[in-house]
Amino acid sequence: MTPELNDCRFLRAARRQSVDTTPVWIMRQAGRYLPEYRSVRDKVSFLELCKRPDLAAEVTLTAQQALGVDAAILFADLLPILEPMGFQLEYTSGGGPKIHNPIRTSEDLKRVRAGDLDELGFVYDTVRLVRKQLPANIPLLGFAGAPFTLASYAIEGGGSRDFARTKRLMYGCPDLWTGLMQRLVDSVVGYLERQIEAGCQAVQLFDSWAGCLSPADYRQYALPYTKGIFDRLPAHVPAIHFLTGNPALLPLQREAGGSIIGLDWRIDLADAWSRVGLDVAVQGNLDPLVLQADLATLKTQTRAVLDAAGGRPGHIFNLGHGVLPETDPNQVKALVAMVHEMGAARS
Amino acid sequence: MTPELNDCRFLRAARRQSVDTTPVWIMRQAGRYLPEYRSVRDKVSFLELCKRPDLAAEVTLTAQQALGVDAAILFADLLPILEPMGFQLEYTSGGGPKIHNPIRTSEDLKRVRAGDLDELGFVYDTVRLVRKQLPANIPLLGFAGAPFTLASYAIEGGGSRDFARTKRLMYGCPDLWTGLMQRLVDSVVGYLERQIEAGCQAVQLFDSWAGCLSPADYRQYALPYTKGIFDRLPAHVPAIHFLTGNPALLPLQREAGGSIIGLDWRIDLADAWSRVGLDVAVQGNLDPLVLQADLATLKTQTRAVLDAAGGRPGHIFNLGHGVLPETDPNQVKALVAMVHEMGAARS
Repeated sequence: MTPELNDCRFLRAARRQSVDTTPVWIMRQAGRYLPEYRSVRDKVSFLELCKRPDLAAEVTLTAQQALGVDAAILFADLLPILEPMGFQLEYTSGGGPKIHNPIRTSEDLKRVRAGDLDELGFVYDTVRLVRKQLPANIPLLGFAGAPFTLASYAIEGGGSRDFARTKRLMYGCPDLWTGLMQRLVDSVVGYLERQIEAGCQAVQLFDSWAGCLSPADYRQYALPYTKGIFDRLPAHVPAIHFLTGNPALLPLQREAGGSIIGLDWRIDLADAWSRVGLDVAVQGNLDPLVLQADLATLKTQTRAVLDAAGGRPGHIFNLGHGVLPETDPNQVKALVAMVHEMGAARS
Repeated sequence: MTPELNDCRFLRAARRQSVDTTPVWIMRQAGRYLPEYRSVRDKVSFLELCKRPDLAAEVTLTAQQALGVDAAILFADLLPILEPMGFQLEYTSGGGPKIHNPIRTSEDLKRVRAGDLDELGFVYDTVRLVRKQLPANIPLLGFAGAPFTLASYAIEGGGSRDFARTKRLMYGCPDLWTGLMQRLVDSVVGYLERQIEAGCQAVQLFDSWAGCLSPADYRQYALPYTKGIFDRLPAHVPAIHFLTGNPALLPLQREAGGSIIGLDWRIDLADAWSRVGLDVAVQGNLDPLVLQADLATLKTQTRAVLDAAGGRPGHIFNLGHGVLPETDPNQVKALVAMVHEMGAARS
């Protein structure tokens, strides 16, 4: 890593060092709300876009440049990691992802492998292409799904409202659950290691669905596996642990690992930071829908997040969830400018 | 109220008085998982069932009797209150409720009335029929939706994943929001008052969707209206305030009112009770999916909830959300028996 990159705003904040202003990036910043993204996406399917390093690199870079954010995040999806593990994945138009051979019985587990992560070479190629073209002071983030979230998809076969199949299997078939989760841990570690080797300066683990668990169930069925991943990642690489949907899990989210705790918008940032401990960095936590409000509301709520962070080193500004497709890109650009302006006054 | 009813297990716990064992009832206890319910439902549509006092009373009573729970809850739905307010409601088969004329603009607000609550006479008739036939020591609970939850339906026109229209209107049209919420408050108060007059001993307000709000937004856009309802209900009637999806709102949920705080399963009950204050009763908080686990898991998790309550007067056992259709009724019966047995040892 060059000294310039090592000393960039995002990585300094990730290490809880002082910054000239609050760094900001936007979850799903390379997404459908952006005309530059849509024009690429019009030509290829979602899965094809994920698997074409030239195009994936293009949308990654375009978003960073268009918004002026302090980090780029690899354009990819949570689920392709399941393919080398033996799952048949399809993105139906409009209906979201579908897994044609979900895991339901102990018999099914036999065909689930830890996976040959080299099969996801298109991801590492994208990382290399992006890193080559990114400004010297902009880090590139890699990412993967957390084991509970990936397991939910592998079991439900798609999205779910109450995660009934997942929980039934989790409660009813402990060996099957453990077997699946361990294979996911091994796969995710291998996947993130390769992303880092290819040129990512930090990584984020997305636990999009673990919020459906009670604290006791999270501790028993999810935490050990998430922790297994963070324990095995190289210690010098900042790792963001994002979990959404249940602020009561925050202390356990911290216990599971990550040097930066990613927050959704359901809790006040100051409250959250004191619950996870002031000795860790935090990321968040504006409600994505505030981007669809008027500028005055956007400003008030952005200021409230920065006020809650209180100018303490170690805050990375972000939404509490991915930016929504109906969002006006100009609002996102305005948000980035606001954070940089207001953050400078506080730093 | 007879002395026997006044001194029943549920009402004693609601007043935080000592009990012989922990009272228990199950949200959505008269529901599709129960064969007795399905045999009635096979003959009529959902809306017809809601509007036929003889049948609504039958499923209310059957569920209480079949399960041996300590309270009956009026069979009804959250949304028919919107009809006298001017909304056109339909329950599509499989697709959930649909409102054909959702509110989107200030112009739309003109056709929204506080509503003539006497139009919901079928509900009060059901209450009278049930009260006549219930055992003398079993209270009947009435209920209604909380203003935010009802407003979401009225704006979205049905269910929603991210409540985008609701939040856009809430941020962008403060007068429209206030106008709608005030009409909802007036309607809900009138509706619950009539349920109480007809024979309900306690009521529950369901805020099923407010968990999508940040604490600051809940305080600004939801709390004043929910509080407006609790402030106007007769003080001697126990009122359960149930909110799901965001444990960080608990202190504000308490502030909004209710003599019993209804918890979902996302937080440990002891933690929740200490956050809302020990000077209020609590209800909850088993994950409904645990009913689909083996008996040993059900027992362990039931014991954990009772342990968290610690035998303190003022705990009403319940699930953290409605019982799911795929649940085995025998598991629900086993749960009720367990609570009564384990609760007796703690009381």
